[in-house]
Amino acid sequence: MPSPTYANEPSRPATRAELSAAFAAVRAHSCALAAPLSAEDQCVQSMPDASPVKWHLGHTTWFFETLVLQAFGAEHTRLDPRYAFIFNSYYESLGPRHPRPARGMLTRPSAAEVMHYRETVDHAVRRFIDTAPDAVLDRARNALLLGLHHEQQHQELLLTDVLHLLSLNPLCPAYREAGAPAPQRMPQPLAWTPVDGGVVSVGHAGGGFAFDNEGPRHDVLLQPYRIASRPVSCGEYLAFIRDGGYRDPQWWLSDGWALARAEGWQAPAYWSHEEGPEPRHFTLAGEQPVDPAEPVCHLSFYEAAAYAAWAGARLPSEFEWEAALARGLIDAGSVGAVWEWTRSAYGPYPGFKPFAGAASEYNGKFMVGQMVLRGGSCATPPGHVRPTYRNFFPPPARWQFSGLRLACDA
Amino acid sequence: MPSPTYANEPSRPATRAELSAAFAAVRAHSCALAAPLSAEDQCVQSMPDASPVKWHLGHTTWFFETLVLQAFGAEHTRLDPRYAFIFNSYYESLGPRHPRPARGMLTRPSAAEVMHYRETVDHAVRRFIDTAPDAVLDRARNALLLGLHHEQQHQELLLTDVLHLLSLNPLCPAYREAGAPAPQRMPQPLAWTPVDGGVVSVGHAGGGFAFDNEGPRHDVLLQPYRIASRPVSCGEYLAFIRDGGYRDPQWWLSDGWALARAEGWQAPAYWSHEEGPEPRHFTLAGEQPVDPAEPVCHLSFYEAAAYAAWAGARLPSEFEWEAALARGLIDAGSVGAVWEWTRSAYGPYPGFKPFAGAASEYNGKFMVGQMVLRGGSCATPPGHVRPTYRNFFPPPARWQFSGLRLACDA
Amino acid sequence: MPSPTYANEPSRPATRAELSAAFAAVRAHSCALAAPLSAEDQCVQSMPDASPVKWHLGHTTWFFETLVLQAFGAEHTRLDPRYAFIFNSYYESLGPRHPRPARGMLTRPSAAEVMHYRETVDHAVRRFIDTAPDAVLDRARNALLLGLHHEQQHQELLLTDVLHLLSLNPLCPAYREAGAPAPQRMPQPLAWTPVDGGVVSVGHAGGGFAFDNEGPRHDVLLQPYRIASRPVSCGEYLAFIRDGGYRDPQWWLSDGWALARAEGWQAPAYWSHEEGPEPRHFTLAGEQPVDPAEPVCHLSFYEAAAYAAWAGARLPSEFEWEAALARGLIDAGSVGAVWEWTRSAYGPYPGFKPFAGAASEYNGKFMVGQMVLRGGSCATPPGHVRPTYRNFFPPPARWQFSGLRLACDA
Amino acid sequence: MPSPTYANEPSRPATRAELSAAFAAVRAHSCALAAPLSAEDQCVQSMPDASPVKWHLGHTTWFFETLVLQAFGAEHTRLDPRYAFIFNSYYESLGPRHPRPARGMLTRPSAAEVMHYRETVDHAVRRFIDTAPDAVLDRARNALLLGLHHEQQHQELLLTDVLHLLSLNPLCPAYREAGAPAPQRMPQPLAWTPVDGGVVSVGHAGGGFAFDNEGPRHDVLLQPYRIASRPVSCGEYLAFIRDGGYRDPQWWLSDGWALARAEGWQAPAYWSHEEGPEPRHFTLAGEQPVDPAEPVCHLSFYEAAAYAAWAGARLPSEFEWEAALARGLIDAGSVGAVWEWTRSAYGPYPGFKPFAGAASEYNGKFMVGQMVLRGGSCATPPGHVRPTYRNFFPPPARWQFSGLRLACDA
Repeated sequence: MPSPTYANEPSRPATRAELSAAFAAVRAHSCALAAPLSAEDQCVQSMPDASPVKWHLGHTTWFFETLVLQAFGAEHTRLDPRYAFIFNSYYESLGPRHPRPARGMLTRPSAAEVMHYRETVDHAVRRFIDTAPDAVLDRARNALLLGLHHEQQHQELLLTDVLHLLSLNPLCPAYREAGAPAPQRMPQPLAWTPVDGGVVSVGHAGGGFAFDNEGPRHDVLLQPYRIASRPVSCGEYLAFIRDGGYRDPQWWLSDGWALARAEGWQAPAYWSHEEGPEPRHFTLAGEQPVDPAEPVCHLSFYEAAAYAAWAGARLPSEFEWEAALARGLIDAGSVGAVWEWTRSAYGPYPGFKPFAGAASEYNGKFMVGQMVLRGGSCATPPGHVRPTYRNFFPPPARWQFSGLRLACDA
Repeated sequence: MPSPTYANEPSRPATRAELSAAFAAVRAHSCALAAPLSAEDQCVQSMPDASPVKWHLGHTTWFFETLVLQAFGAEHTRLDPRYAFIFNSYYESLGPRHPRPARGMLTRPSAAEVMHYRETVDHAVRRFIDTAPDAVLDRARNALLLGLHHEQQHQELLLTDVLHLLSLNPLCPAYREAGAPAPQRMPQPLAWTPVDGGVVSVGHAGGGFAFDNEGPRHDVLLQPYRIASRPVSCGEYLAFIRDGGYRDPQWWLSDGWALARAEGWQAPAYWSHEEGPEPRHFTLAGEQPVDPAEPVCHLSFYEAAAYAAWAGARLPSEFEWEAALARGLIDAGSVGAVWEWTRSAYGPYPGFKPFAGAASEYNGKFMVGQMVLRGGSCATPPGHVRPTYRNFFPPPARWQFSGLRLACDA
Repeated sequence: MPSPTYANEPSRPATRAELSAAFAAVRAHSCALAAPLSAEDQCVQSMPDASPVKWHLGHTTWFFETLVLQAFGAEHTRLDPRYAFIFNSYYESLGPRHPRPARGMLTRPSAAEVMHYRETVDHAVRRFIDTAPDAVLDRARNALLLGLHHEQQHQELLLTDVLHLLSLNPLCPAYREAGAPAPQRMPQPLAWTPVDGGVVSVGHAGGGFAFDNEGPRHDVLLQPYRIASRPVSCGEYLAFIRDGGYRDPQWWLSDGWALARAEGWQAPAYWSHEEGPEPRHFTLAGEQPVDPAEPVCHLSFYEAAAYAAWAGARLPSEFEWEAALARGLIDAGSVGAVWEWTRSAYGPYPGFKPFAGAASEYNGKFMVGQMVLRGGSCATPPGHVRPTYRNFFPPPARWQFSGLRLACDA
Repeated sequence: MPSPTYANEPSRPATRAELSAAFAAVRAHSCALAAPLSAEDQCVQSMPDASPVKWHLGHTTWFFETLVLQAFGAEHTRLDPRYAFIFNSYYESLGPRHPRPARGMLTRPSAAEVMHYRETVDHAVRRFIDTAPDAVLDRARNALLLGLHHEQQHQELLLTDVLHLLSLNPLCPAYREAGAPAPQRMPQPLAWTPVDGGVVSVGHAGGGFAFDNEGPRHDVLLQPYRIASRPVSCGEYLAFIRDGGYRDPQWWLSDGWALARAEGWQAPAYWSHEEGPEPRHFTLAGEQPVDPAEPVCHLSFYEAAAYAAWAGARLPSEFEWEAALARGLIDAGSVGAVWEWTRSAYGPYPGFKPFAGAASEYNGKFMVGQMVLRGGSCATPPGHVRPTYRNFFPPPARWQFSGLRLACDA
C-alpha cells in the first residue's frame, strides 16, 4: 500500500491548480484504461452486474455534469438531454433512467460520441475550476472530489467488467498482452500476528477525502485476536481444492454450499484445469498459469469463508482489519494486492450521516445484504487505497479482485 | 414478556420427572396446534420457504429419534428408515434428504401415520428419560433440551406456515374462529427512553438453556441512544402508507425498493384495501379489520427500515435492544408482541463455538445474508422468549410475525 | 378397442332412464377412481400441468351445475357461490377463476365437502332428467352428454395426475396394489400393413356423441403408406435406448434435443435404471419391472419422433391413422393400449364450428402448439375410445399414457 | 411480387460466369446492408432469438467455407479454426459451437476481422467457381446455390434483428434516415375472391432452386374458400385495437391470451400511443406515424389469429394461399409486402427428404411447434420470394415482418 500518496492524490488537492491537475489526471486515466479496447469491446455488457466500458466512461462524465456543473450553475451546454436518462446509474432523485441490465443495448451513443461528451464536460469543469468565484468553488469542492473518487471506483469496475467480458470469448483475448494489471507476488511465508483487544477508534479521522460510509469515527471494543501477515496465496488455496474443499459441505455456509452446487464451482472464478498439475486462469493478460505465490483472487465471500473454516481460522471483522493496520501490525506492503473479504456485514456506523443532496444515495441505500471488503487490488487506481475504505459486494460476487486474509481468536 | 416463566419451562428441567413433564408438555403442544387442522391442511406446502404442518410434526420427531435415541443408544425400533430421508431438514452430516421445496408432495406418510410416528418416538424418549443410567442421561440432557427448544421453534413456524397457506385460499378460512393467537393490543402512546452508551455485556450468561448463537457472552461498546417504549402500531404504520410511503424511494434501501416494485407491495403482507378507510388483514382468525392499536406485523426488513427512515428514526441494533431490556429500560410487557427487526446482520459472536456433533449445523451455517430479530410474537410458545434470543430471517421475509421498534441516536 | 360399446355408453342414451343410468354410472366411476386415495392424496397438486384429484371431482361437478342446471333453469340451490371461482377451469366467459397453478393450495373445501357438493348436484341433475319438460330436456341433452364425456376425460387425467404425484414420493406408494390400470401386453411381433392412397373421408359421421373438434367430416387426400400392426413395445424402445438414442442428436427434432439435454432425459418418464439389465418403472401399481411386451408409454412427442427416425420410419398423420382403422387395416384390439402420438399438429378441420355457448371454449382455443394423439389408454374409461377422437398435448408432455405407432411411406 | 425475377436470381445461374456474378451480387448485398451500421451496432445481440449483424456476416461465410470449400476440396487456408466454433449456428454434425444466447459476447473477432474473413472466403469461392473441374463444380452447384439462398435468408434476419436492437435504444436511432426498407402502401380496398375446392398440386415443381421443405410436390384436396385481395392494413387493424381487441379473450387462442396478458400487449410490436389519435411505430427509418394504408406488421401468430376471428374470418392454410396464387387469384403485387401467417403448422410434406449431408439439418429438425408464413416482406431480398416458399416461426414471434391475409370458408 503506497501510504505516502494515498491521502493526497486526488483526495485533497488544495489549490485551483492542484485541483485542475488532479481532475485532469483522473479523467485521463479512465481514457488510458479504455485505450486498449475496441469500440466493440467497450459496448457489450456481459452480465447484469457488469456495465459496458463505454457506459462507465459516460456515467462518470454525467456525474460531473450533474453534481458539479448543473448543481453549481456552471456555464455549460448539455450535448444531449437524453444522456441524463442513459447515464444515470441509480439516483432516484435525479429522475428516470435506462434499466441497468439493458446498458449493453446502447450501441448509440458511439464510443467516439461518448469520448466527445467527456471532452465537452472536461472542458467545462476545467473552466469552472479556473474561473468560479472562490465561494462557489469552495462549496463545489466536495462534489468535485467525490466525482474524482467516484471515477476511480469506476476505473476498477471498468477492469473487472472487461475481464469478465473477455473471459466469455472463445478466442481468449488479453486486455493487454504486456503490462496488464496483475496481483503482486507474495513469496514470503504466512505469519501470524497477535493483536490485543480493547477499545479502538475506527473510521475516517478527517484530514482528507473519505466516503460518507467511512464515518463517523467511533470507538469499538475488540477481543484479542491474531491476524495473518498477508492474504491467502493461490498455492495455499490449491491445497484446499485438492483436499476436496469444494465437495465437502462441512466448510461451507448453507447459502454458499447451495450456490456452489447449483453453479458447479470447483475453483475460483476464471480457473480451469483446477485439479490438474497445472491449473490455469484467465487474467487481464489472457490465459496464464496460476502462480502459487499470487494472492488467490476472484473468490466469493462463501469461498473465502469456506477456506478459512478449512484452515481452522476465520475472516477478520472489518474493525480487526482496520485496527491491525492502524497499529502497524499488518505489513502495509501486503495491503492492496487483493480485496479482502471480512466477516462484517455492510451497515451504517453509529451516527452515520449520508452525503447531502443527490449524493445521499451514494452509499447508504446499499447497506443491507452485502459484506465489507477491505484493502484494494491490482485494479485499484493509485491513491485510492486507504485504511478506512469500505468496499462492499454481495456474498456471491466473484468477478471482483476479491480474496481473503485469515484471522483467528487469540 | 412473561419473565417469571421463560427461564424454566422447558429451559432447565432439573429432575427426571421435570424433564419428562417438560417433554410431554412440549410434545403435546405441537399436537394441540395441529388439532384444528384437517389432514389436507396439514399436508400442503404453500411456498418453498414454508413447510407442511405434518412435516413439522414429523421433523421434530425425527430430531429426537436421531439426536437423542440413536445418539445415546436408547432402545428403539425405527418405524421406517426412509423417514430419516423424508424428515431431515438440512443436516448434511446426517445424510441425504428430501428436497425442501418438495415437502408438499408427501401425501404419504399420512397425518395419522405421522401421529403414530410421534407416539412411538415419544414412548421411547419417555422410557429413556425414566430408565437411562444417570451418566447417560446427563450426557443426553443437552440434546433433549435442544430438542424441546427446537420443537418450540417449529411450533411458531407451524403457525406462520399455516397462516400463509390459508391466506391463499379464496374461502378465507380461519385457523381458529375463536382463540386464535393474535398480537396483544398496545393502546398506550409511544414514548422514548434514553439509554447511556458505554461497555455492556451481551449474550447468554448461563443458568438456563440457550442456543449456541447466543454466546459467548461478551462486552460491546454502545453509543448513547434512545429507544421506543413499544413496537410500532398498525395505526402508526397506516400513516406511513397514507403518506405514500410505498411510492417514495427516498425511504427505502435499494434492494427493498426493487423488491417492493417487483412484487407490487402497498402494505404489509396479508393486508387488503390498504389505503381505504377500513383496512383489513388476513389473520389466524380469518379476515379481520386492522386494529390501529395492534403492533404492525408481517413486515419485511425492508419495510421496517423504510418506516423507520420515514419516521426520522432507525432500527436498534440487536445489542441496543438487549441492553435496554436488560437494564429495564424497555417495558417487558411490550416484548413478545411481535418479532422486532434490528439493524444487525446475523453473524457469530466473538469466540462463537457451534454445538458439538450434528447440532453444529443448527445455527452457524446460516450466518450470512440474514438480519436478527429480537423478542417474540403471539405465535411464540410460552417460555420460549428470552432477552438473549436471536431470531433471524432474510430481509425479504414477510410471512413471520415480524414488526419493529424504533430507535435513534441520542 | 371395444367397438360395440363405444358409440352407446354414454354417448347416446335415448330415454330418460338410459340418460339417468349413464349419468349415474359415469359419476360413480369418478368416485370409484378416487376411492383408493386419502384426502391428502386428493388435495396435492404435483405440477402446474396436473390438478388435484379433489379438484377434478369438483370441477366436473361445477360443469354440470353451470352448463346444465343453471343454463336450463333447473331447480337447484348452489352450495357456495365461491365454488364457481374455485372450480372453473378455463372458461373466460364464465367469469374469473382460481389460478391453475394454485389449485393445490385448496385444502378447503375438504374432500368430504367436495363429495357433498357432488351429491347435491347429482341429486339435482337426476331430478332434472326425471322431471324436466320434454322440450327442455331435449335442448339440454347435448350439454348433459358433453358433461358425461367431459367427466370421462377428467377420469383419465385423474389417474395420470395421481401417478405423477405418487412418483414424487420417496415411499413409492402404489395407487392400487392390485387391479391398477396397466397397459395390455402385446406379445405378437410387429407387422406392417400397406394402405392405398386416395381420397378418404375423415371426422365424425354423426350417429353418436362427438366433440366439436372431430368434425365436420370431410375428405382428405392421402398418399400410399404403410402402418404398423401395433404400438411400439418397451422391448423395442429399450433397443433405442441401448443404441444410444438419447445421446445422438441426429434422431431428434431441435426443440426435443434441447429439452432432453436440459432435463437429462435418458429413458421414458418414470423409468429408472434404464440402461441396466433390469429396467424398472413407476406405475399405478408402484415400482415394477419393465415388461418388454408392454407398449412403451410416457413418451413426449419428441421421443416418439426420435424413436421413429431411429427406426427408419415416421409417425402416421392423424388421418392415416383414422383411415387405416376405418378400413379395418389396423387391429382394433391394438387400439386403446396407449395414446399414439401422430405427426399432425392439432388444428381445426375445414369448416370447424365450435360448440355453442360457454362450451365454445372447450376445444377451439387450444388449436395451436399441440400435437394430436389417437387411440386411448389403459386409463381411458370404457366407452370413451372412438376412431375419430382427437386427443392433444404439447410436444414436451410425458405424464400422459402416451406412446407411438410407426408408419412409413409406401 | 416481382415475378419475372424471382425464379432466376440467384436461383438458377447457368454458367460459371452467371454463378460467379450471382455469388458476387449476393455477398455484396450483405455488406451493403451492414454498411449503415457501426461496428458497435453490428456487435450487440438484443435477445436470444436475434443475432448480431457481425455474426450473420461471419456465419454465412462459414457456411460457404464449410459446405463448399471444405466439402469439395477447394484450395483454401482457414483464417482461424476457432471460427468454426464461433460461427456454426446449429449443425450438430459439424461439431460443437458457441451457445446462441452468447453470440453478443463476441467483441472479437472485430467487424473488420469478420470483413477480412469474408474477403478471404469470397476470393477462394470465386476461384473455385472459375477453376474447379466441371464435374466437381456440378456436384458443388447445389451447395453453392444453397449458400446463396441461405445468405439471403440471413439478409432478412439481419434487418429484423437490427430493428429489434435499435428499438431498445432510448435515442431511437434510424437504421437509415432515407431509403430504409418499408412495406409498400396498399391503398386499394380489400376485396374477396372465391376459390373452388378440389385437388390441387402444391410444392415446388422443379426448374429452379427450392429448399428441401418445399417438396415433394404433391396433391392436396381443398374445400371451397374465399381469400382476401391483399394483407390486412394498419388502418383495419387499428379498428380491432380500438374495439378492445386486446382486452377481450373471446378472439384469442388460449396460449395467445396468456402471453398477451403476461407481456401487456396492446398493439403490434414497436407501436406506441396505440389507442391515441396518432399511433406511431418504430421502423428502420426511426419512429414514424403509422400509415393506415400500410400492411400491419410485427404481429405474432396469436394476434393474427385474433384479428381474423374478430373480423369474422380466419387465416388461410398454406395450401389455400399457394393454390390461390398459382391460379392467379391473388394479386401478385400484393405478395411480398409482409409475411403472411397461415393456419398451417410447419411440418414435412408427404415423402419429405431432407438435403443430403450436413444440410440435412437445414429445415427438417425444426418441424414442430412453428407456423408457416407465406409471401415475403420489404426486408426480403429481391429474387427471394416464390410461391412455394415456406417461412416458419413460433407463434409468439413478433420481431419479423409478419402480418396476415384473411380467408374464410366459401
